[in-house]
Amino acid sequence: MNVREVLREWGLNDFRVIDKRAIEEITLGASILATGGGGDPEIGLLWTYKVIEEGKEIIMVDPKDVPDDILVASPACLGAALVLTEKPPSRGVLNLAVSKLESYIGKKLKATVPIECGGVNSPVAYAAAGELGVPVIDVDGMNRAFPELQMTSWVTHGVHSSPTVSVDNRGNVTIIDTREDDLRAETLCRRAAMAYGGISWIATYPMSGKEVKETSILNSQSIAWAIGRAVLRARRSHCDPVAEVLRSLKESRDVEGYNVFKGKIVDIKREFGSEMTKGFTSGQVTMEGIEKDKGNTAFLDFQNEWLNLRINGKVRCMPPDLIAILDLETGEPIRTDIMKYGYRGSIVLIPAHNRMRTDKGITIFGPRHFGYNLDYIPVEELNFKEEEDERRE
Amino acid sequence: MNVREVLREWGLNDFRVIDKRAIEEITLGASILATGGGGDPEIGLLWTYKVIEEGKEIIMVDPKDVPDDILVASPACLGAALVLTEKPPSRGVLNLAVSKLESYIGKKLKATVPIECGGVNSPVAYAAAGELGVPVIDVDGMNRAFPELQMTSWVTHGVHSSPTVSVDNRGNVTIIDTREDDLRAETLCRRAAMAYGGISWIATYPMSGKEVKETSILNSQSIAWAIGRAVLRARRSHCDPVAEVLRSLKESRDVEGYNVFKGKIVDIKREFGSEMTKGFTSGQVTMEGIEKDKGNTAFLDFQNEWLNLRINGKVRCMPPDLIAILDLETGEPIRTDIMKYGYRGSIVLIPAHNRMRTDKGITIFGPRHFGYNLDYIPVEELNFKEEEDERRE
Repeated sequence: MNVREVLREWGLNDFRVIDKRAIEEITLGASILATGGGGDPEIGLLWTYKVIEEGKEIIMVDPKDVPDDILVASPACLGAALVLTEKPPSRGVLNLAVSKLESYIGKKLKATVPIECGGVNSPVAYAAAGELGVPVIDVDGMNRAFPELQMTSWVTHGVHSSPTVSVDNRGNVTIIDTREDDLRAETLCRRAAMAYGGISWIATYPMSGKEVKETSILNSQSIAWAIGRAVLRARRSHCDPVAEVLRSLKESRDVEGYNVFKGKIVDIKREFGSEMTKGFTSGQVTMEGIEKDKGNTAFLDFQNEWLNLRINGKVRCMPPDLIAILDLETGEPIRTDIMKYGYRGSIVLIPAHNRMRTDKGITIFGPRHFGYNLDYIPVEELNFKEEEDERRE
Repeated sequence: MNVREVLREWGLNDFRVIDKRAIEEITLGASILATGGGGDPEIGLLWTYKVIEEGKEIIMVDPKDVPDDILVASPACLGAALVLTEKPPSRGVLNLAVSKLESYIGKKLKATVPIECGGVNSPVAYAAAGELGVPVIDVDGMNRAFPELQMTSWVTHGVHSSPTVSVDNRGNVTIIDTREDDLRAETLCRRAAMAYGGISWIATYPMSGKEVKETSILNSQSIAWAIGRAVLRARRSHCDPVAEVLRSLKESRDVEGYNVFKGKIVDIKREFGSEMTKGFTSGQVTMEGIEKDKGNTAFLDFQNEWLNLRINGKVRCMPPDLIAILDLETGEPIRTDIMKYGYRGSIVLIPAHNRMRTDKGITIFGPRHFGYNLDYIPVEELNFKEEEDERRE
């Protein structure tokens, strides 16, 4: 199939061609929104560059332009990011997963959607679209990264991950169909990934064009793109990349982010067992404040992504709101899988998208799901109060 | 489909109708050959009785009469036998598994084969055949029970378990297709069973009629039937059931079994963790000799099935040869999942079928696979020598 034929079928003239520069910007923005997870952007980027170099067009379309009745799905990587670095994908994996999904469902795929914002899963959805000759839609299921398959706006709005096809580099195939039980689908996919050696490639969340429009985080690719573009511009003009992230967020999403802490990593506790036993990169990090934050201490938990932030013992952000630690010079996100003692960065907090903050969303990926005995309080409230407290003092 | 139509298609007049008495005898014989595993025969038996009561015919055919080009597969239960007792199957599970297998392969199933001799998986293959309206073939893949999916004469003779469909009572479906990697298929199936809560229902080992003939343990159902019939006859006429097992083995298979120990269970060590973490019933048992064996001690390891027997510290049987502990009065096998302190029985050893004793077989399910630092020595040799030693003393 050729992506231009698909666009002609839909009678669509308005779309964006994704070139190397565009995918670089989108991936950088997505990896900032990935809140410390999402994996190594190099892997997905190189893959996408290769697709473009082979002359395959990558086209992004707006969700409003997508026909209601087409089959859409999300091609993604599921597993422990640490393992991925050791095991780069062979190129056929997503084509295999998608073709198995198509035969299981009995319908051809007409567009891809990124499952999350992440260094791997954002570009991978573009690469797969290019390889399959279909467009990628300007949406995703989180507008951040999250460690588990069911943690999407799709699930909280009634779309299910089943059937999901999971494959590995050697051509092993597992098809998981738990119908409405998305938690069990996650368990089965995770176990398949571990049985493969830690990493799997999936085609998941088969849904209609109508469902994409009604349940996704709309235009999340444009948001990531705006952030990535702003950071690259800041680097070129030697501006503060962290300020640029906040400014572009305000422009593209109309939300306030919070730059709450500047410090360096002084302690990392990794739960090494969890990588093998549960398939995640988990642990805790302590940061010691520098400059304006000298004397303050930040403490973060992570499970692939940053989950929870406390500063001087006070909770300042809880899931599903976003935590990013950005390198002071480059704005590059510090990732949980590769961070080291001594890394310096600013902690930036970003309100989750409203489609992630429904009651069902808070149940599925709020603080209690991750084992915190805390009711969800939005990041705006946690940090607004903080400022008030400070003013009162 | 109706089983008689299938037989007409094949032009076959020579077959056996399986009634309640027949399935009772076959299941008893199979559970003796199950070497302590294979699960609770009540579950499979009641299921099969129900199928017969509904007027569905169960027909067994000889492997030589099966057309070469038909699709055959094995419907079975995979998981921890202990859990099965708590979670009896809903009737549609195997129909669901088979229909998903048929659509994945694109061909209709024309016969079932039992995967092993066991209290559950023998009758289940008959019940499924009755429900599906196809015959069951007089073969299996082990002529005993074994804990793992790949431990079959099918694998050792070049047939693979993939694709396997695994389902549960709630209609969850997992399709596993690892092509030639049967060990990975076992890992994936086991993890799916655990994700389902401990028990799964599978349709596995899709193969042609030709492959059935070339790679199965032929007429193993007839062997189980002969043993079961002999034990029931012994009970009615108050003969020694253990002697009857050995006599019927000699008649139906032309092999010698060994009645090597009479004793009672004085210690059971269960690895409770393994049930949940690996999906098996594992541990060790000590038996103290009685009567002729007074003063002797038998020590057995088990992983679903009895694996290894030592008497007074001397190895007397190793996998894949068979170990059964039979109740002194009834000949009923003592199972690893329900045995208790104080149970009395005779330990009977039976040589594995030659199709299980190939070099590949010894690699896949011989002593080293199960973690014993021992070269395989056939049970005939271990016990013949023993008798010689005793004569020499």
